[in-house]
Amino acid sequence: MQYRIEKDTMGEVQVPADVYWGAQTQRSIENFKIAQDINKMPKEIIKAFAYLKHGAALTNQELGVLPKEKADLIGTVCNEILAGKLDDQFPLVVWQTGSGTQSNMNCNEVIAYRGHVLQGGDLGDKQKFLHPNDDVNKSQSSNDTFPTAMHIAAYKMLIEVTIPGIEKLRDTLAAKSAEFMNVVKIGRTHFMDATPLTVGQEFSGYVSQLNHGLKAIKNTLEHLSELALGGTAVGTGINTPDGYSELVAKHIANLTGLPFVTAENKFEALAAHDAIVEAHGALKTVAASLMKIANDVRMLSSGPRAGIGEIFIPDNEPGSSIMPGKVNPTQCEALTMIAAQVMGNDVAINFGGALGHFELNVFKPVMIYNFLHSARLIGEGCVSFNDKCAIGLAPLTENITKHVNNSLMLVTALNTKIGYYKSAEIAQTAHKNGSTLKETAISLGYLTAEEFDAWVKPEEMVGHLK
Amino acid sequence: MQYRIEKDTMGEVQVPADVYWGAQTQRSIENFKIAQDINKMPKEIIKAFAYLKHGAALTNQELGVLPKEKADLIGTVCNEILAGKLDDQFPLVVWQTGSGTQSNMNCNEVIAYRGHVLQGGDLGDKQKFLHPNDDVNKSQSSNDTFPTAMHIAAYKMLIEVTIPGIEKLRDTLAAKSAEFMNVVKIGRTHFMDATPLTVGQEFSGYVSQLNHGLKAIKNTLEHLSELALGGTAVGTGINTPDGYSELVAKHIANLTGLPFVTAENKFEALAAHDAIVEAHGALKTVAASLMKIANDVRMLSSGPRAGIGEIFIPDNEPGSSIMPGKVNPTQCEALTMIAAQVMGNDVAINFGGALGHFELNVFKPVMIYNFLHSARLIGEGCVSFNDKCAIGLAPLTENITKHVNNSLMLVTALNTKIGYYKSAEIAQTAHKNGSTLKETAISLGYLTAEEFDAWVKPEEMVGHLK
Amino acid sequence: MQYRIEKDTMGEVQVPADVYWGAQTQRSIENFKIAQDINKMPKEIIKAFAYLKHGAALTNQELGVLPKEKADLIGTVCNEILAGKLDDQFPLVVWQTGSGTQSNMNCNEVIAYRGHVLQGGDLGDKQKFLHPNDDVNKSQSSNDTFPTAMHIAAYKMLIEVTIPGIEKLRDTLAAKSAEFMNVVKIGRTHFMDATPLTVGQEFSGYVSQLNHGLKAIKNTLEHLSELALGGTAVGTGINTPDGYSELVAKHIANLTGLPFVTAENKFEALAAHDAIVEAHGALKTVAASLMKIANDVRMLSSGPRAGIGEIFIPDNEPGSSIMPGKVNPTQCEALTMIAAQVMGNDVAINFGGALGHFELNVFKPVMIYNFLHSARLIGEGCVSFNDKCAIGLAPLTENITKHVNNSLMLVTALNTKIGYYKSAEIAQTAHKNGSTLKETAISLGYLTAEEFDAWVKPEEMVGHLK
Amino acid sequence: MQYRIEKDTMGEVQVPADVYWGAQTQRSIENFKIAQDINKMPKEIIKAFAYLKHGAALTNQELGVLPKEKADLIGTVCNEILAGKLDDQFPLVVWQTGSGTQSNMNCNEVIAYRGHVLQGGDLGDKQKFLHPNDDVNKSQSSNDTFPTAMHIAAYKMLIEVTIPGIEKLRDTLAAKSAEFMNVVKIGRTHFMDATPLTVGQEFSGYVSQLNHGLKAIKNTLEHLSELALGGTAVGTGINTPDGYSELVAKHIANLTGLPFVTAENKFEALAAHDAIVEAHGALKTVAASLMKIANDVRMLSSGPRAGIGEIFIPDNEPGSSIMPGKVNPTQCEALTMIAAQVMGNDVAINFGGALGHFELNVFKPVMIYNFLHSARLIGEGCVSFNDKCAIGLAPLTENITKHVNNSLMLVTALNTKIGYYKSAEIAQTAHKNGSTLKETAISLGYLTAEEFDAWVKPEEMVGHLK
Repeated sequence: MQYRIEKDTMGEVQVPADVYWGAQTQRSIENFKIAQDINKMPKEIIKAFAYLKHGAALTNQELGVLPKEKADLIGTVCNEILAGKLDDQFPLVVWQTGSGTQSNMNCNEVIAYRGHVLQGGDLGDKQKFLHPNDDVNKSQSSNDTFPTAMHIAAYKMLIEVTIPGIEKLRDTLAAKSAEFMNVVKIGRTHFMDATPLTVGQEFSGYVSQLNHGLKAIKNTLEHLSELALGGTAVGTGINTPDGYSELVAKHIANLTGLPFVTAENKFEALAAHDAIVEAHGALKTVAASLMKIANDVRMLSSGPRAGIGEIFIPDNEPGSSIMPGKVNPTQCEALTMIAAQVMGNDVAINFGGALGHFELNVFKPVMIYNFLHSARLIGEGCVSFNDKCAIGLAPLTENITKHVNNSLMLVTALNTKIGYYKSAEIAQTAHKNGSTLKETAISLGYLTAEEFDAWVKPEEMVGHLK
Repeated sequence: MQYRIEKDTMGEVQVPADVYWGAQTQRSIENFKIAQDINKMPKEIIKAFAYLKHGAALTNQELGVLPKEKADLIGTVCNEILAGKLDDQFPLVVWQTGSGTQSNMNCNEVIAYRGHVLQGGDLGDKQKFLHPNDDVNKSQSSNDTFPTAMHIAAYKMLIEVTIPGIEKLRDTLAAKSAEFMNVVKIGRTHFMDATPLTVGQEFSGYVSQLNHGLKAIKNTLEHLSELALGGTAVGTGINTPDGYSELVAKHIANLTGLPFVTAENKFEALAAHDAIVEAHGALKTVAASLMKIANDVRMLSSGPRAGIGEIFIPDNEPGSSIMPGKVNPTQCEALTMIAAQVMGNDVAINFGGALGHFELNVFKPVMIYNFLHSARLIGEGCVSFNDKCAIGLAPLTENITKHVNNSLMLVTALNTKIGYYKSAEIAQTAHKNGSTLKETAISLGYLTAEEFDAWVKPEEMVGHLK
Repeated sequence: MQYRIEKDTMGEVQVPADVYWGAQTQRSIENFKIAQDINKMPKEIIKAFAYLKHGAALTNQELGVLPKEKADLIGTVCNEILAGKLDDQFPLVVWQTGSGTQSNMNCNEVIAYRGHVLQGGDLGDKQKFLHPNDDVNKSQSSNDTFPTAMHIAAYKMLIEVTIPGIEKLRDTLAAKSAEFMNVVKIGRTHFMDATPLTVGQEFSGYVSQLNHGLKAIKNTLEHLSELALGGTAVGTGINTPDGYSELVAKHIANLTGLPFVTAENKFEALAAHDAIVEAHGALKTVAASLMKIANDVRMLSSGPRAGIGEIFIPDNEPGSSIMPGKVNPTQCEALTMIAAQVMGNDVAINFGGALGHFELNVFKPVMIYNFLHSARLIGEGCVSFNDKCAIGLAPLTENITKHVNNSLMLVTALNTKIGYYKSAEIAQTAHKNGSTLKETAISLGYLTAEEFDAWVKPEEMVGHLK
Repeated sequence: MQYRIEKDTMGEVQVPADVYWGAQTQRSIENFKIAQDINKMPKEIIKAFAYLKHGAALTNQELGVLPKEKADLIGTVCNEILAGKLDDQFPLVVWQTGSGTQSNMNCNEVIAYRGHVLQGGDLGDKQKFLHPNDDVNKSQSSNDTFPTAMHIAAYKMLIEVTIPGIEKLRDTLAAKSAEFMNVVKIGRTHFMDATPLTVGQEFSGYVSQLNHGLKAIKNTLEHLSELALGGTAVGTGINTPDGYSELVAKHIANLTGLPFVTAENKFEALAAHDAIVEAHGALKTVAASLMKIANDVRMLSSGPRAGIGEIFIPDNEPGSSIMPGKVNPTQCEALTMIAAQVMGNDVAINFGGALGHFELNVFKPVMIYNFLHSARLIGEGCVSFNDKCAIGLAPLTENITKHVNNSLMLVTALNTKIGYYKSAEIAQTAHKNGSTLKETAISLGYLTAEEFDAWVKPEEMVGHLK
């Protein structure tokens, strides 16, 4: 391989001749040989840096501390990054310095050196048109850029992937709820037969969970909309021109189309990432909802002959490598595994979030890595579950009807007629004898056949249907 | 011990002669011999039941399904419970049925039998004036009462203990922030010396964290304000009179003085406790904040002679049983242990919250047990930390001044004058030689003494002070 | 209330006249008003202190630094503590200093002052026969006594409660496994019908899980057997006589009857509690097992008419306050809630365990609180589940037979005869048509009725039975 | 793109013409569009499958159910997989069916079709020489192969990466401990000055932690050495020849060089993954240790002028993009982030491990994904921390000496001479007056200068040095 020599404040470093990165990126590659093939810094963070470096350049130019020519050049490279043209220029991993300094420098170097080349220069030139620190990083510190990139990436992922994914599934389940609103089925509490409800009512609970989950996520967006940029090294904004914080937030808001504002307190914004902890608290809530929904679907579809068998699920693939003809609730399983992962990611984030010290939290990369992982898994998991499972769900009415008609818990309708204790005696006797509620009720002399038929009607035990 | 005989639908049970509880409570005592001395059902849940049983009685009366005399009697006993007169009548533990049925029945039995006695009856009477199921539990099920009690207890604890506790600490820290706003100190990032800020700025970050945390908690109150009552067995509201749900929520709101409403979807309200998962997500966020704040305080107060020693903390007790004269940051330690506990409680809640099935979540007691634990620990922990530590915090100016004046990171102020690379050279050289920045800068020939004095002023490196 | 004045190195404190504790205990009561009614320092820790204070006194006497009279007196009070005679003298909570100093001093004070009274003195005497620090705490520090008490309490709980509880359940399940070894039932994978096995085989899996769990716990005992005592303030053993560490460990081993040894490295023993983290890792493994077992039992017993209904569980109490005659798997629910709690406790312990600094970990109380909680819940939970549920489990053979005979997955037996693809076709066709495997196989022309009968025998599909 | 048609039991599927995978792999790609670029099934699992498919082929051949020619061909392809020649043939993600069926089929298909080509066939041939199910998967099920692959991959990772990584760091720290055994420094408890110890003693605590951690990991290997293979669909071993289980374990042991044995209970081995939960419990213990060690190192190296500054750490890269000349403890930060990740992974594993049902746990992929992640991060993280930080650690003796000589806690040496109370008075007075211990002690009249010098010697307060 061909190399060129790059320099930073610590001295010279050999860098592959044709890459846009420089000395500090190369040092990081060599210093952090940890899971390099599987734990690259998330690409969403790189793109977030492209927005913020562009926004910072525009702001620096407007405030008179960066020439227009340099600002334009920085903007051009940032657009290339967003277009995916420089994807292979960001080799660093999550397991680096906890401030993300090296990824910030990776961006600074790539933008500076790619800009130099775009401007007609050569990668081998000792002096380059753009300087990674003095131009691209102007008015910035890793300490305020990385948390800014965290919020940009997190917010975008929630808006573009997580929320739409949940909404898609919510809409499908809402349609199913309406469609099956009159299909009366047996309820189950403690896994045991209970009083009836309708399939549509059951599904309405899932819809309500997801609606509340969406609200929970949206409640956390305001904190995420606060950007640290302008705090620089420790939150005081040293080395920034007047008016910088507000203006750079406005530029980033324009570039991303998202309502970012400058953080009201920069000391918090560098030293703590409570916004990430808080927003992931909403994600873990959704994970709990999804675990519940997916578990219900797979248990209700269990069988086909020795299970509950009340819901049809699409069969997307052969289920077993040894049992021919088997169909399994694979989409449910992917979704419940995702829920487990999100629960784990939450704890990693809590650890990182709790352990900021003094003016800086240095668990930034691990926090945003887990956050983006969860946000994406939930969004894409919901879409997969929706497209390959939820849209095909349908009640298996034969089993549903059989179950509801056999149920002993229809006896609950008698509470208000003959009291809880006599009702219990009927149910217990029927259970012991394997008889029906009706014949037992009559033989015990607690009511007549006519009364039973008038009082015990599953379809009237489900309340008002919407 | 004297016993009397009580009956339930399963038969007779020996009950201590003078207790107000009945057969089902007694069965639970005998069936669940698990941590009985340390894990009683939280008293806040019992009190929440008192509110809801009273509210249900009023509603049943108004809707014509319960005589006024019985409703009044129920109300009287509920007030006794709230006044703490019957505290010893609730012996059950968290580790019971997952729907909390037995604690619901404990309340039903105590209210019925205490009511019977109040009305002139005797505990030994076979027939009692009030029936636990048919009167006290009328229009209710454990499945909707227990989650209602969960929300009442959780909401009250947040409003009465958690939020005021956090606010008290927040107010003290805000006052400290204002007081110390001009005390310039060295910043620290990565535990290493960084550019300066003021003690007041540092504290303003804590204030901002707590303000965001309070907002996060308050965002979750709306979901918690939804009451399951009216859903009865499976969410359909079987065995409730028309208009019951809305009216009972209104009565509970009146009785508690809190803005409770009936849950928009009762199926969710029984089968999932996402509101608890979500609200505890806010609590764990606050725990992360408190861990950060308490860690900072104890590290900044470290010493007295071999640590950082920049903050004075009150000495409340001898710190060591072997090292005479030692003072330790014990309030910080209590608070960080609380933060660790809350992080653990969060996971217990996540497990429970994710594992509802069909029409019921049966992890109700463990969820509310952990929730109330966290909410109380945070509230009382903040008050303790505030009263015994935060209010006494003061800067140790001698050390603060020494540290800021020695710092090599004041060199950052030169970035915009002579560039990042030359500035780095100055700092590195001074570090290597153990010299001051000023003498190094001059000897390297990068600036004059006058320039140094004009450009490197710690008090001008801290930005705009509010 | 009557008070007396006690003194410590910080000055005078008013103490209730008739309590045995002194100034430092009283300070802690007043300084830590956090969950005082529910989070007392676990009584197992107090008893562990009784063993270690007695052991230390014996050692100090033998090594010539404590008069026999004082040592005897200390031993006498320790025995009173173990006998439960002084239970109300330990009012402190978990949320105190993270080294447990105040609980150590609580023990020192109670032993000294109770000893003084036993020796004929009066609580009001200014000079007492035993000094809390100079006599009772001789050759000790909170920093080595508290972790020693942690290991004693943890080890004893595991040996006396946790392991016997698990073993009791394991034995019952093993007996059930043997008893039901020939009851052929349908297997279920992914909640879907699979090839058959026997009830006894299924239960043998539970037995194997618990056996492995027991082994996992026992693997961690060696680390727990190491005692910190002798390290004193920072691990160096300052202020201890020669030979102290080994001798005091021997005395504690004698007093407890457990194989304690002195820790090979005292610096670890004070600064880290990896033994607790590690041992709780085994407890959470058992929690995972118990969650699995209890879930299986409740799902297999689901019904009685609309569930799986293959296992009978004892009905210990009325299951529902609204649905008469309902029986619920309440012991399963208590056990799964316990499992959730243990999973949460694990995270609290991990937080504490990871955050020791320099020569001391100051998350000691929260760590042991959670550890003892888990260890006890598992032990007592297993006993409860065993006594009230597992011993009554029995197969419901009617349903079991129906399910196995109907199953389409018996087709798996044909793989080795006619190949996976044709077998799949048979199963899929039978599923579509609602027909039996046999008639479908024949109608598709893949085998004869005789071949089917010879090849598809559920009882021969279950392998070798032990 | 060119396609060919492949078939499975559900029908035809278009597959890229030149890939070795078949219908089921292709279905999975299309059915699970979740994080496809970042969450591929770990390559270690694919390699583990290569060992087991090879072992199964050898076993099938020896037991007479597979022709030698086919077995040889399977073995050849497995060796290609191990050599990395087919890396791009395994496109599936973690988020698939919870049994890992599709990855098992991916392996079956690639082996069969690559074998067919090796044997001279063409990918487009309708009939292929090897059949994915009937040949490659013979005597197997996903339900026993995937857990077998989990144990192989986990065991290998622990042996090859995790344990050597920890040992490397342990050895370096042990050497440092020996080297610095006589460097007396001030101890710190509660972040406050305490009695002295030596740098070597402090480091010996780290060594002891890692030694115990290694022991903890090794304790879990026995459970991991048990292989599920032979259980097939539900644990009964249906469709396996006699003697299969033991023989296939022996072959896998031979092929891997690791002491694998057949699981004593196959029902557990399919339905639960307690071995993974348990072994990860050891990994999280090590994570706690590493968090402690890395935190100590970075806090001890804090400064250079306003921190503790007692340990030198190598400077590997410029620390700040804005503060010139700053050096940060970046290796510590990577390691503490790894510890946080492992703590999170533990919870994901606990969720998965607790939620097996009936005959199968269907959280297999998420469990092994997290396990391998942790095991690798710890191993590679230790090596990185070792090579780039630990080997360069050195005491900064100037600061160390200053701190120890100033310390007030040297007063502890006087406890046994003048008692705890007078010693406390000396320390408190010296602290208040800013005076030295010696002058204070003398002025208080508690001892002479000679006594002080004779009794207070830091180097004699550190106990016996090894």
